[in-house]
Amino acid sequence: MNIPKMIAAMLSLTFLLACSPSGDGSHISEVTDQLPSWNDGDTKKQILDFVDRVTDPANPDFVPEAQRIATFDNDGTLWAEQPLYFQLFFAIDRVKELAPEHPEWAEHQPFKAVLDGDLEALAAGGKRGLLELVMATHTGMTTEEFEQIATDWLDTTKHPTSGRPFTEMVYQPMLEVLDYLRANGFKTYIVSAGGIEFMRPWTEEVYGIPPEQVVGSSIKTAFEVQEGGSVLMRLPEIGFIDDKEAKPVAINSHIGRRPIAAFGNSDGDLQMLQYATGSDQPGFALLVHHDDAEREWAYDRDSKIGHLDKALDEAEAHGWTVVSMRDDWRMVFPPAD
Amino acid sequence: MNIPKMIAAMLSLTFLLACSPSGDGSHISEVTDQLPSWNDGDTKKQILDFVDRVTDPANPDFVPEAQRIATFDNDGTLWAEQPLYFQLFFAIDRVKELAPEHPEWAEHQPFKAVLDGDLEALAAGGKRGLLELVMATHTGMTTEEFEQIATDWLDTTKHPTSGRPFTEMVYQPMLEVLDYLRANGFKTYIVSAGGIEFMRPWTEEVYGIPPEQVVGSSIKTAFEVQEGGSVLMRLPEIGFIDDKEAKPVAINSHIGRRPIAAFGNSDGDLQMLQYATGSDQPGFALLVHHDDAEREWAYDRDSKIGHLDKALDEAEAHGWTVVSMRDDWRMVFPPAD
Repeated sequence: MNIPKMIAAMLSLTFLLACSPSGDGSHISEVTDQLPSWNDGDTKKQILDFVDRVTDPANPDFVPEAQRIATFDNDGTLWAEQPLYFQLFFAIDRVKELAPEHPEWAEHQPFKAVLDGDLEALAAGGKRGLLELVMATHTGMTTEEFEQIATDWLDTTKHPTSGRPFTEMVYQPMLEVLDYLRANGFKTYIVSAGGIEFMRPWTEEVYGIPPEQVVGSSIKTAFEVQEGGSVLMRLPEIGFIDDKEAKPVAINSHIGRRPIAAFGNSDGDLQMLQYATGSDQPGFALLVHHDDAEREWAYDRDSKIGHLDKALDEAEAHGWTVVSMRDDWRMVFPPAD
Repeated sequence: MNIPKMIAAMLSLTFLLACSPSGDGSHISEVTDQLPSWNDGDTKKQILDFVDRVTDPANPDFVPEAQRIATFDNDGTLWAEQPLYFQLFFAIDRVKELAPEHPEWAEHQPFKAVLDGDLEALAAGGKRGLLELVMATHTGMTTEEFEQIATDWLDTTKHPTSGRPFTEMVYQPMLEVLDYLRANGFKTYIVSAGGIEFMRPWTEEVYGIPPEQVVGSSIKTAFEVQEGGSVLMRLPEIGFIDDKEAKPVAINSHIGRRPIAAFGNSDGDLQMLQYATGSDQPGFALLVHHDDAEREWAYDRDSKIGHLDKALDEAEAHGWTVVSMRDDWRMVFPPAD
């Protein structure tokens, strides 16, 4: 916390205390609730208790600030992932834009599905289908050109059912968890199967997570010296798929420390949660369970997107925290502007 | 800067000013010299001028704090690399320790050179030879076990000619540059061909650079769930060689921003320096030239270790900053305790 912010926080706390009808501790904790979108209950208590334990120097579970690493999946954990992964919508729009240069796509999957508007066929292709679309539509330009393309798309495109920008389809309660952890000395990271360069242009503004704390899937790049400068060209070749067993590998590569808290929503996050809880240090694992068909979507063991089956069993076996979106969250998305 | 440190700095400045024989600005700038081990001259001025330009909001070259990324090579730039890369000494000691289990090593290079104590044959093997030794001696254990092995070795082993711990064979003037940049809002990274997990255990203590800001060469790892926990096993397979064209690629992968300042000493750093200076944003490139046979070592175009040839020509062509260790540095290594 910088000094002007700290002074502001102290002033606002003084103000609240001055207005408080009584000086008892319960009131103070109420006015300083840092997870206001979470209903009171076991889930919220488990998050608060874990943070209390690792930040209290007198507690045997105390963890020094530098080691307070928290990793978050993105799709389905920080923002929504229905009716399709959002990056797939981006790839679809790119396919349509580039199709005139690729007449052969009319007869080949997954391109045919895109051009026919057959979302079911696309969803059936799963992450592998997304990768093929990514290879064809996210490469052949510099990293800086791609950043601009992704930024322009996010600035101008709306989610198909809500009509809101994709960057507003984020979970308000999870934004609060990110802020709460950072206020308690945690460094927050994204570790997602989504494209690392698709996420980095906007994660700082939306989540407070800077590009260097975003880990994701990648294509290969090549360094080129050109007239008047140098660039990295995006090549149509897979670099790294950041999913399942690869998530702990990527965490070690990018961060070099074992997280003490990991947040996910699908079987693709299972190994990351096992890694965060797999040593002698304190470890917290949380799964967001999509059980709210009314305010969001309800899906788990039978879904192709955000498939949650084995990780749900493991969560029960190990006592991990499972969030019921329906019961634990007072609101799902941030209020519209 | 945290608050106790800031208060201490303010107090010490007050103390210095109180003792000052005159109140003129030149004296103040002398007492607050943040690069005291650098002789006054063009080189030092170029560093100070660049930082002044990018941190002054009124200057057209101003760069917002979040984008102030500085990348440093390690071997030969932050610590010495003679008579062999230090990690090679580590690998040599590992070969000797493991040799009884590998009778075949007596007849095969580079292992034979190690066991015969033939440093010249080893040096001739260059980085490729180091990699073979690394494959054989740095793998087959968990990442956490390897960290302990590397830490124990550094704690107990001395440099063969100076007799000092390897972590004291660091360049005092470069430690000051690291501190000076961070005090001016830069985020400092290591981007080295050295092993990422060989560096991470000690870079925070020695350089003030935490593990998550260390980028290097790596072997592959595999996630394993074991009885009572989970680990990453180090596999005898190259993951990434972080040298030459691969340095900008690794910077993009780990940091996701183009550095505005890059520091190196060999042709292996050329592309990183081209990357830092290859866009419209302000860019600073610096080469440490080892020309001080008396206090350190003198080597450049003909050396196998720290080979500096093409990058020296490019530095001249583009007006990059070239440090003469002999002329620009008041001292090379920190004073011994």
